[in-house]
Amino acid sequence: MTYCVGMRLDRGLVFMSDTRTNAGVDNISTFRKMHSWEHPGERTIMLMTAGNLATTQSVVSHLEERMKAPDDRAPSIFEAPSMFQVAQLVAATLKEVIANHGGAGQTADSTFHATIILGGQIAGSPSRLFLIYPEGNFIEAGSDTPFFQIGETKYGRPILVRAHDPAMGFAEAVKLLLVSFDSTIKANLSVGLPLDVQIYEENALKLGQTLRIGADNAYFTEISSLWGDALKHALDQLPDITL
Amino acid sequence: MTYCVGMRLDRGLVFMSDTRTNAGVDNISTFRKMHSWEHPGERTIMLMTAGNLATTQSVVSHLEERMKAPDDRAPSIFEAPSMFQVAQLVAATLKEVIANHGGAGQTADSTFHATIILGGQIAGSPSRLFLIYPEGNFIEAGSDTPFFQIGETKYGRPILVRAHDPAMGFAEAVKLLLVSFDSTIKANLSVGLPLDVQIYEENALKLGQTLRIGADNAYFTEISSLWGDALKHALDQLPDITL
Repeated sequence: MTYCVGMRLDRGLVFMSDTRTNAGVDNISTFRKMHSWEHPGERTIMLMTAGNLATTQSVVSHLEERMKAPDDRAPSIFEAPSMFQVAQLVAATLKEVIANHGGAGQTADSTFHATIILGGQIAGSPSRLFLIYPEGNFIEAGSDTPFFQIGETKYGRPILVRAHDPAMGFAEAVKLLLVSFDSTIKANLSVGLPLDVQIYEENALKLGQTLRIGADNAYFTEISSLWGDALKHALDQLPDITL
Repeated sequence: MTYCVGMRLDRGLVFMSDTRTNAGVDNISTFRKMHSWEHPGERTIMLMTAGNLATTQSVVSHLEERMKAPDDRAPSIFEAPSMFQVAQLVAATLKEVIANHGGAGQTADSTFHATIILGGQIAGSPSRLFLIYPEGNFIEAGSDTPFFQIGETKYGRPILVRAHDPAMGFAEAVKLLLVSFDSTIKANLSVGLPLDVQIYEENALKLGQTLRIGADNAYFTEISSLWGDALKHALDQLPDITL
Protein backbone atom coordinates (compact mmCIF):
# COMPACT_ATOMS: atom_id res chain seq x y z
CA MET A 1 0.00 0.00 0.00
CA THR A 2 0.96 3.66 -0.19
CA TYR A 3 -0.45 6.99 0.82
CA CYS A 4 -0.12 10.10 -1.34
CA VAL A 5 -2.09 13.34 -1.33
CA GLY A 6 -2.03 16.13 -3.89
CA MET A 7 -3.76 19.33 -2.86
CA ARG A 8 -4.81 22.52 -4.61
CA LEU A 9 -4.52 25.77 -2.69
CA ASP A 10 -5.07 29.34 -3.79
CA ARG A 11 -1.32 29.79 -3.50
CA GLY A 12 -0.35 26.70 -5.47
CA LEU A 13 -0.03 22.96 -5.06
CA VAL A 14 1.23 20.74 -2.23
CA PHE A 15 2.18 17.07 -2.59
CA MET A 16 3.01 14.54 0.09
CA SER A 17 3.85 10.87 -0.31
CA ASP A 18 5.14 8.08 1.90
CA THR A 19 8.00 5.84 0.79
CA ARG A 20 7.07 2.35 1.93
CA THR A 21 6.63 -0.45 -0.56
CA ASN A 22 5.74 -3.95 0.42
CA ALA A 23 5.22 -7.41 -0.94
CA GLY A 24 3.72 -8.91 2.19
CA VAL A 25 4.45 -7.65 5.69
CA ASP A 26 7.79 -9.46 5.72
CA ASN A 27 9.17 -7.78 2.63
CA ILE A 28 9.19 -4.01 2.92
CA SER A 29 11.44 -1.45 1.27
CA THR A 30 11.80 2.28 0.90
CA PHE A 31 11.29 3.82 -2.53
CA ARG A 32 10.62 7.36 -3.60
CA LYS A 33 7.10 7.71 -5.02
CA MET A 34 7.34 11.40 -5.83
CA HIS A 35 8.95 12.62 -9.03
CA SER A 36 9.31 16.08 -10.49
CA TRP A 37 10.66 17.79 -13.55
CA GLU A 38 11.11 21.45 -14.26
CA HIS A 39 12.09 23.72 -17.08
CA PRO A 40 12.40 26.88 -14.99
CA GLY A 41 10.30 29.73 -16.26
CA GLU A 42 8.39 27.47 -18.66
CA ARG A 43 6.93 24.44 -16.88
CA THR A 44 6.99 22.38 -13.70
CA ILE A 45 5.54 18.89 -13.48
CA MET A 46 5.13 16.78 -10.34
CA LEU A 47 3.87 13.22 -10.09
CA MET A 48 3.16 10.70 -7.32
CA THR A 49 2.45 7.01 -7.79
CA ALA A 50 0.61 4.24 -5.95
CA GLY A 51 0.37 0.62 -6.97
CA ASN A 52 2.74 -1.90 -8.50
CA LEU A 53 6.29 -0.57 -8.12
CA ALA A 54 7.57 -2.15 -11.34
CA THR A 55 4.76 -0.42 -13.21
CA THR A 56 5.27 3.00 -11.64
CA GLN A 57 9.06 2.92 -12.05
CA SER A 58 8.63 1.88 -15.65
CA VAL A 59 6.21 4.74 -16.30
CA VAL A 60 8.63 7.27 -14.83
CA SER A 61 11.55 5.79 -16.78
CA HIS A 62 9.59 5.92 -20.03
CA LEU A 63 8.68 9.55 -19.41
CA GLU A 64 12.31 10.40 -18.71
CA GLU A 65 13.72 8.45 -21.66
CA ARG A 66 11.60 10.48 -23.98
CA MET A 67 13.00 13.70 -22.60
CA LYS A 68 16.61 12.56 -22.72
CA ALA A 69 16.86 10.94 -26.13
CA PRO A 70 15.66 13.71 -28.38
CA ASP A 71 16.50 11.95 -31.65
CA ASP A 72 13.97 9.17 -31.50
CA ARG A 73 11.73 10.43 -28.79
CA ALA A 74 7.98 10.18 -28.82
CA PRO A 75 6.06 13.28 -27.68
CA SER A 76 7.48 14.20 -24.26
CA ILE A 77 5.89 15.82 -21.24
CA PHE A 78 8.39 18.67 -21.80
CA GLU A 79 6.89 19.39 -25.20
CA ALA A 80 3.16 19.00 -24.58
CA PRO A 81 1.56 22.42 -24.89
CA SER A 82 -0.86 22.06 -21.95
CA MET A 83 -1.16 20.21 -18.63
CA PHE A 84 -4.14 18.38 -20.12
CA GLN A 85 -1.89 16.97 -22.82
CA VAL A 86 0.78 16.13 -20.25
CA ALA A 87 -1.89 14.17 -18.37
CA GLN A 88 -2.88 12.41 -21.59
CA LEU A 89 0.74 11.43 -22.21
CA VAL A 90 1.30 10.13 -18.69
CA ALA A 91 -2.02 8.26 -18.81
CA ALA A 92 -1.20 6.68 -22.17
CA THR A 93 2.22 5.62 -20.88
CA LEU A 94 0.67 4.10 -17.75
CA LYS A 95 -1.90 2.19 -19.78
CA GLU A 96 0.78 0.94 -22.17
CA VAL A 97 3.07 -0.26 -19.37
CA ILE A 98 0.25 -2.11 -17.65
CA ALA A 99 -0.82 -3.69 -20.95
CA ASN A 100 2.77 -4.80 -21.67
CA HIS A 101 3.30 -6.34 -18.24
CA GLY A 102 -0.08 -7.96 -18.12
CA GLY A 103 -0.16 -9.34 -21.64
CA ALA A 104 2.51 -12.01 -21.52
CA GLY A 105 4.82 -13.91 -19.23
CA GLN A 106 3.85 -15.51 -15.98
CA THR A 107 0.57 -14.73 -14.31
CA ALA A 108 1.22 -12.70 -11.17
CA ASP A 109 -0.52 -13.01 -7.83
CA SER A 110 -0.95 -9.27 -7.67
CA THR A 111 -2.08 -6.99 -10.46
CA PHE A 112 0.17 -4.59 -12.36
CA HIS A 113 -2.17 -1.68 -11.68
CA ALA A 114 -1.07 1.74 -10.57
CA THR A 115 -2.67 5.11 -9.98
CA ILE A 116 -1.00 8.48 -10.44
CA ILE A 117 -1.51 11.98 -9.09
CA LEU A 118 -0.13 14.53 -11.54
CA GLY A 119 0.13 18.26 -11.04
CA GLY A 120 1.97 21.17 -12.48
CA GLN A 121 1.86 24.36 -14.46
CA ILE A 122 2.89 25.47 -17.93
CA ALA A 123 3.55 29.16 -18.61
CA GLY A 124 0.39 30.95 -19.73
CA SER A 125 -2.09 28.71 -17.90
CA PRO A 126 -2.91 28.16 -14.23
CA SER A 127 -1.65 25.07 -12.41
CA ARG A 128 -3.74 21.90 -12.69
CA LEU A 129 -4.06 18.72 -10.66
CA PHE A 130 -5.09 15.32 -12.09
CA LEU A 131 -5.80 11.82 -10.83
CA ILE A 132 -4.90 9.20 -13.46
CA TYR A 133 -6.48 5.73 -13.29
CA PRO A 134 -4.82 2.47 -14.38
CA GLU A 135 -7.27 2.36 -17.29
CA GLY A 136 -5.64 5.49 -18.69
CA ASN A 137 -8.50 7.87 -18.08
CA PHE A 138 -8.25 10.71 -15.58
CA ILE A 139 -10.11 13.38 -13.63
CA GLU A 140 -9.15 16.89 -12.59
CA ALA A 141 -9.45 18.48 -9.16
CA GLY A 142 -11.85 21.40 -8.91
CA SER A 143 -13.00 23.69 -6.16
CA ASP A 144 -15.54 21.13 -4.90
CA THR A 145 -12.89 18.42 -4.58
CA PRO A 146 -9.61 20.29 -4.22
CA PHE A 147 -7.43 17.29 -3.29
CA PHE A 148 -6.77 13.75 -4.46
CA GLN A 149 -5.63 10.81 -2.37
CA ILE A 150 -4.24 7.51 -3.64
CA GLY A 151 -3.32 4.29 -1.84
CA GLU A 152 -4.61 3.92 1.72
CA THR A 153 -6.97 6.87 1.60
CA LYS A 154 -9.49 6.20 4.34
CA TYR A 155 -7.80 6.76 7.71
CA GLY A 156 -6.48 10.16 6.74
CA ARG A 157 -9.53 11.42 4.89
CA PRO A 158 -11.83 12.81 7.63
CA ILE A 159 -9.33 15.44 8.77
CA LEU A 160 -8.68 16.54 5.17
CA VAL A 161 -12.40 16.85 4.44
CA ARG A 162 -12.98 18.86 7.62
CA ALA A 163 -9.94 21.09 7.71
CA HIS A 164 -8.92 21.76 4.12
CA ASP A 165 -9.30 25.39 3.20
CA PRO A 166 -8.06 26.68 -0.18
CA ALA A 167 -6.96 29.90 1.51
CA MET A 168 -4.52 28.16 3.84
CA GLY A 169 -0.78 28.80 3.58
CA PHE A 170 1.82 26.19 2.68
CA ALA A 171 3.00 25.71 6.30
CA GLU A 172 -0.56 25.10 7.42
CA ALA A 173 -1.19 22.71 4.53
CA VAL A 174 1.94 20.70 5.36
CA LYS A 175 0.77 20.53 8.99
CA LEU A 176 -2.65 19.28 7.90
CA LEU A 177 -1.10 16.67 5.62
CA LEU A 178 1.26 15.50 8.37
CA VAL A 179 -1.71 14.93 10.68
CA SER A 180 -3.49 12.99 7.94
CA PHE A 181 -0.35 10.91 7.24
CA ASP A 182 0.26 10.33 10.95
CA SER A 183 -3.24 8.83 11.39
CA THR A 184 -2.62 6.59 8.39
CA ILE A 185 0.85 5.46 9.47
CA LYS A 186 -0.51 4.62 12.92
CA ALA A 187 -3.21 2.41 11.38
CA ASN A 188 -1.62 0.77 8.33
CA LEU A 189 1.80 -0.92 8.46
CA SER A 190 2.12 -0.61 4.69
CA VAL A 191 2.36 3.18 4.89
CA GLY A 192 5.62 4.39 6.42
CA LEU A 193 8.16 7.12 6.97
CA PRO A 194 10.05 8.94 5.57
CA LEU A 195 7.59 11.27 3.84
CA ASP A 196 8.38 13.37 0.77
CA VAL A 197 6.91 16.84 0.50
CA GLN A 198 6.89 19.05 -2.57
CA ILE A 199 5.53 22.57 -2.63
CA TYR A 200 4.71 24.44 -5.82
CA GLU A 201 3.92 28.13 -5.69
CA GLU A 202 1.44 29.32 -8.31
CA ASN A 203 3.15 31.02 -11.28
CA ALA A 204 6.64 30.31 -9.91
CA LEU A 205 7.24 27.92 -12.84
CA LYS A 206 9.99 26.27 -10.84
CA LEU A 207 9.92 23.70 -8.06
CA GLY A 208 9.23 25.07 -4.62
CA GLN A 209 10.52 23.73 -1.34
CA THR A 210 11.25 20.01 -1.13
CA LEU A 211 11.32 18.22 2.24
CA ARG A 212 11.99 14.70 3.41
CA ILE A 213 10.51 14.00 6.82
CA GLY A 214 11.92 10.97 8.60
CA ALA A 215 11.36 9.31 11.96
CA ASP A 216 13.98 11.64 13.46
CA ASN A 217 12.20 14.81 12.30
CA ALA A 218 11.52 16.83 15.45
CA TYR A 219 8.54 18.67 13.96
CA PHE A 220 6.80 15.47 12.88
CA THR A 221 7.25 13.77 16.26
CA GLU A 222 5.97 16.91 17.95
CA ILE A 223 2.87 17.08 15.72
CA SER A 224 2.27 13.38 16.19
CA SER A 225 2.38 13.58 19.96
CA LEU A 226 0.49 16.88 20.29
CA TRP A 227 -2.29 15.79 17.94
CA GLY A 228 -3.55 13.09 20.30
CA ASP A 229 -3.95 15.64 23.08
CA ALA A 230 -5.46 18.19 20.71
CA LEU A 231 -8.09 15.66 19.60
CA LYS A 232 -8.95 14.73 23.17
CA HIS A 233 -9.24 18.38 24.06
CA ALA A 234 -11.44 19.05 21.01
CA LEU A 235 -13.70 16.19 22.04
CA ASP A 236 -13.87 17.49 25.61
CA GLN A 237 -15.06 20.85 24.30
CA LEU A 238 -18.09 19.29 22.63
CA PRO A 239 -21.25 19.18 24.74
CA ASP A 240 -22.05 15.86 26.43
CA ILE A 241 -25.23 13.96 25.65
CA THR A 242 -27.83 13.82 28.43
CA LEU A 243 -28.34 10.15 29.21
CA MET B 1 -21.41 -1.97 4.18
CA THR B 2 -22.07 -1.25 7.83
CA TYR B 3 -20.33 0.37 10.76
CA CYS B 4 -20.55 -1.02 14.29
CA VAL B 5 -18.35 -0.44 17.33
CA GLY B 6 -18.35 -2.31 20.63
CA MET B 7 -16.30 -0.71 23.38
CA ARG B 8 -15.11 -1.79 26.82
CA LEU B 9 -15.03 0.81 29.55
CA ASP B 10 -14.26 0.49 33.24
CA ARG B 11 -17.96 1.16 33.84
CA GLY B 12 -19.28 -1.37 31.36
CA LEU B 13 -19.87 -1.76 27.65
CA VAL B 14 -21.12 0.58 24.93
CA PHE B 15 -22.37 -0.50 21.51
CA MET B 16 -23.23 1.60 18.49
CA SER B 17 -24.39 0.46 15.07
CA ASP B 18 -25.73 2.09 11.94
CA THR B 19 -28.83 0.75 10.19
CA ARG B 20 -28.11 1.01 6.48
CA THR B 21 -28.07 -2.07 4.32
CA ASN B 22 -27.40 -1.96 0.62
CA ALA B 23 -27.24 -4.11 -2.46
CA GLY B 24 -25.67 -1.54 -4.72
CA VAL B 25 -26.05 2.22 -4.25
CA ASP B 26 -29.52 2.12 -5.81
CA ASN B 27 -30.96 -0.40 -3.39
CA ILE B 28 -30.67 0.72 0.21
CA SER B 29 -32.81 -0.14 3.22
CA THR B 30 -32.89 0.36 6.95
CA PHE B 31 -32.49 -2.68 9.20
CA ARG B 32 -31.59 -2.97 12.81
CA LYS B 33 -28.14 -4.57 13.27
CA MET B 34 -28.15 -4.50 17.05
CA HIS B 35 -29.86 -7.22 19.07
CA SER B 36 -30.04 -7.84 22.78
CA TRP B 37 -31.44 -10.33 25.24
CA GLU B 38 -31.65 -10.16 28.97
CA HIS B 39 -32.62 -12.32 31.90
CA PRO B 40 -32.57 -9.54 34.50
CA GLY B 41 -30.32 -10.34 37.44
CA GLU B 42 -28.74 -13.28 35.68
CA ARG B 43 -27.41 -12.36 32.22
CA THR B 44 -27.44 -9.74 29.48
CA ILE B 45 -26.25 -10.40 25.95
CA MET B 46 -25.81 -7.87 23.17
CA LEU B 47 -24.82 -8.51 19.59
CA MET B 48 -24.15 -6.44 16.45
CA THR B 49 -23.75 -7.76 12.92
CA ALA B 50 -22.02 -6.76 9.70
CA GLY B 51 -22.14 -8.57 6.40
CA ASN B 52 -24.78 -10.43 4.45
CA LEU B 53 -28.19 -9.49 5.88
CA ALA B 54 -29.80 -12.86 5.16
CA THR B 55 -26.98 -14.52 7.08
CA THR B 56 -27.11 -12.20 10.07
CA GLN B 57 -30.92 -12.30 10.34
CA SER B 58 -30.80 -16.07 10.13
CA VAL B 59 -28.20 -16.27 12.90
CA VAL B 60 -30.31 -14.08 15.17
CA SER B 61 -33.47 -16.08 14.36
CA HIS B 62 -31.70 -19.35 15.10
CA LEU B 63 -30.48 -18.01 18.44
CA GLU B 64 -33.99 -16.85 19.33
CA GLU B 65 -35.72 -20.06 18.20
CA ARG B 66 -33.59 -22.05 20.60
CA MET B 67 -34.65 -19.87 23.48
CA LYS B 68 -38.35 -19.95 22.67
CA ALA B 69 -38.93 -23.63 21.90
CA PRO B 70 -37.67 -25.27 25.07
CA ASP B 71 -38.86 -28.75 24.17
CA ASP B 72 -36.57 -29.45 21.29
CA ARG B 73 -34.06 -26.74 21.76
CA ALA B 74 -30.37 -27.10 21.23
CA PRO B 75 -28.09 -25.42 23.79
CA SER B 76 -29.25 -21.79 24.00
CA ILE B 77 -27.34 -18.63 24.77
CA PHE B 78 -29.62 -18.33 27.81
CA GLU B 79 -28.27 -21.61 29.21
CA ALA B 80 -24.57 -21.36 28.45
CA PRO B 81 -22.70 -21.01 31.75
CA SER B 82 -20.16 -18.43 30.56
CA MET B 83 -19.80 -15.67 27.99
CA PHE B 84 -17.07 -17.75 26.37
CA GLN B 85 -19.59 -20.51 25.76
CA VAL B 86 -22.16 -17.98 24.51
CA ALA B 87 -19.52 -16.81 22.01
CA GLN B 88 -18.89 -20.41 20.98
CA LEU B 89 -22.62 -20.94 20.41
CA VAL B 90 -23.03 -17.78 18.37
CA ALA B 91 -19.88 -18.56 16.38
CA ALA B 92 -21.04 -22.12 15.65
CA THR B 93 -24.44 -20.81 14.54
CA LEU B 94 -22.82 -18.25 12.25
CA LYS B 95 -20.54 -20.84 10.70
CA GLU B 96 -23.47 -23.22 10.20
CA VAL B 97 -25.66 -20.59 8.54
CA ILE B 98 -22.88 -19.54 6.16
CA ALA B 99 -22.16 -23.18 5.30
CA ASN B 100 -25.86 -23.85 4.63
CA HIS B 101 -26.30 -20.81 2.39
CA GLY B 102 -23.05 -21.33 0.54
CA GLY B 103 -23.28 -25.07 0.00
CA ALA B 104 -26.15 -25.39 -2.42
CA GLY B 105 -28.47 -23.38 -4.60
CA GLN B 106 -27.45 -20.65 -7.01
CA THR B 107 -24.03 -19.08 -6.84
CA ALA B 108 -24.33 -15.53 -5.57
CA ASP B 109 -22.38 -12.49 -6.71
CA SER B 110 -21.68 -11.53 -3.14
CA THR B 111 -20.54 -13.82 -0.37
CA PHE B 112 -22.67 -14.97 2.55
CA HIS B 113 -20.08 -13.86 5.06
CA ALA B 114 -20.85 -11.94 8.22
CA THR B 115 -18.93 -10.73 11.25
CA ILE B 116 -20.36 -10.28 14.73
CA ILE B 117 -19.50 -8.23 17.80
CA LEU B 118 -20.82 -9.95 20.91
CA GLY B 119 -20.78 -8.60 24.44
CA GLY B 120 -22.46 -9.24 27.72
CA GLN B 121 -22.23 -10.44 31.26
CA ILE B 122 -23.36 -13.48 33.19
CA ALA B 123 -23.77 -13.26 36.98
CA GLY B 124 -20.57 -14.20 38.77
CA SER B 125 -18.16 -13.11 36.03
CA PRO B 126 -17.15 -9.75 34.60
CA SER B 127 -18.54 -8.57 31.26
CA ARG B 128 -16.73 -9.70 28.12
CA LEU B 129 -16.54 -8.47 24.53
CA PHE B 130 -15.87 -10.68 21.51
CA LEU B 131 -15.35 -10.32 17.78
CA ILE B 132 -16.60 -13.36 15.86
CA TYR B 133 -15.29 -14.11 12.37
CA PRO B 134 -17.27 -15.78 9.55
CA GLU B 135 -15.01 -18.83 9.94
CA GLY B 136 -16.49 -19.36 13.40
CA ASN B 137 -13.42 -18.45 15.42
CA PHE B 138 -13.30 -15.37 17.62
CA ILE B 139 -11.11 -13.03 19.64
CA GLU B 140 -11.73 -11.16 22.88
CA ALA B 141 -11.09 -7.49 23.64
CA GLY B 142 -8.46 -6.79 26.27
CA SER B 143 -6.95 -3.69 27.78
CA ASP B 144 -4.54 -3.25 24.85
CA THR B 145 -7.37 -3.34 22.31
CA PRO B 146 -10.46 -2.31 24.23
CA PHE B 147 -12.82 -1.90 21.26
CA PHE B 148 -13.85 -3.76 18.13
CA GLN B 149 -15.08 -2.29 14.88
CA ILE B 150 -16.79 -4.15 12.05
CA GLY B 151 -17.84 -3.04 8.57
CA GLU B 152 -16.36 0.23 7.32
CA THR B 153 -13.80 0.59 10.07
CA LYS B 154 -11.17 2.90 8.62
CA TYR B 155 -12.59 6.43 8.51
CA GLY B 156 -13.70 6.35 12.12
CA ARG B 157 -10.69 4.59 13.58
CA PRO B 158 -8.11 7.38 14.15
CA ILE B 159 -10.34 9.26 16.61
CA LEU B 160 -11.11 6.05 18.54
CA VAL B 161 -7.43 5.14 18.77
CA ARG B 162 -6.50 8.61 19.96
CA ALA B 163 -9.35 9.44 22.30
CA HIS B 164 -10.51 6.17 23.83
CA ASP B 165 -9.90 6.06 27.53
CA PRO B 166 -11.25 3.18 29.63
CA ALA B 167 -12.01 5.60 32.46
CA MET B 168 -14.43 7.69 30.39
CA GLY B 169 -18.11 7.87 31.31
CA PHE B 170 -20.97 6.62 29.16
CA ALA B 171 -21.94 10.11 27.94
CA GLU B 172 -18.38 10.79 26.86
CA ALA B 173 -18.13 7.41 25.16
CA VAL B 174 -21.34 8.01 23.22
CA LYS B 175 -19.97 11.40 22.16
CA LEU B 176 -16.71 9.81 20.96
CA LEU B 177 -18.61 7.14 19.05
CA LEU B 178 -20.88 9.72 17.43
CA VAL B 179 -17.83 11.62 16.17
CA SER B 180 -16.39 8.37 14.80
CA PHE B 181 -19.72 7.50 13.13
CA ASP B 182 -20.14 11.01 11.76
CA SER B 183 -16.75 10.83 9.99
CA THR B 184 -17.73 7.46 8.53
CA ILE B 185 -21.20 8.54 7.41
CA LYS B 186 -19.72 11.61 5.70
CA ALA B 187 -17.29 9.41 3.75
CA ASN B 188 -19.18 6.21 2.94
CA LEU B 189 -22.70 6.22 1.50
CA SER B 190 -23.26 2.65 2.66
CA VAL B 191 -23.19 3.69 6.32
CA GLY B 192 -26.23 5.70 7.36
CA LEU B 193 -28.52 7.04 10.05
CA PRO B 194 -30.34 6.22 12.25
CA LEU B 195 -27.83 4.89 14.75
CA ASP B 196 -28.62 2.43 17.52
CA VAL B 197 -26.91 2.83 20.87
CA GLN B 198 -26.90 0.32 23.71
CA ILE B 199 -25.29 0.96 27.07
CA TYR B 200 -24.51 -1.80 29.54
CA GLU B 201 -23.43 -0.92 33.04
CA GLU B 202 -21.03 -3.39 34.66
CA ASN B 203 -22.78 -5.75 37.11
CA ALA B 204 -26.24 -4.33 36.32
CA LEU B 205 -27.21 -7.65 34.70
CA LYS B 206 -29.95 -5.84 32.82
CA LEU B 207 -29.90 -3.73 29.67
CA GLY B 208 -28.91 -0.12 30.18
CA GLN B 209 -30.09 2.84 28.22
CA THR B 210 -31.08 2.30 24.59
CA LEU B 211 -31.08 5.15 22.11
CA ARG B 212 -31.96 5.58 18.48
CA ILE B 213 -30.32 8.61 16.91
CA GLY B 214 -31.87 9.78 13.66
CA ALA B 215 -31.21 12.64 11.26
CA ASP B 216 -33.53 14.83 13.32
CA ASN B 217 -31.59 14.26 16.55
CA ALA B 218 -30.54 17.72 17.75
CA TYR B 219 -27.54 16.43 19.70
CA PHE B 220 -26.11 14.54 16.73
CA THR B 221 -26.49 17.48 14.33
CA GLU B 222 -24.86 19.74 16.92
CA ILE B 223 -21.90 17.36 17.40
CA SER B 224 -21.56 16.93 13.65
CA SER B 225 -21.43 20.65 12.99
CA LEU B 226 -19.27 21.56 16.02
CA TRP B 227 -16.73 18.81 15.33
CA GLY B 228 -15.54 20.43 12.08
CA ASP B 229 -14.78 23.66 13.90
CA ALA B 230 -13.22 21.80 16.84
CA LEU B 231 -10.86 19.95 14.48
CA LYS B 232 -9.85 23.13 12.68
CA HIS B 233 -9.23 24.80 16.01
CA ALA B 234 -7.18 21.81 17.22
CA LEU B 235 -5.08 22.00 14.06
CA ASP B 236 -4.58 25.75 14.50
CA GLN B 237 -3.24 25.12 17.99
CA LEU B 238 -0.44 22.91 16.68
CA PRO B 239 2.82 24.71 15.89
CA ASP B 240 3.46 25.52 12.21
CA ILE B 241 6.44 24.10 10.36
CA THR B 242 9.16 26.57 9.41
CA LEU B 243 9.42 26.45 5.64
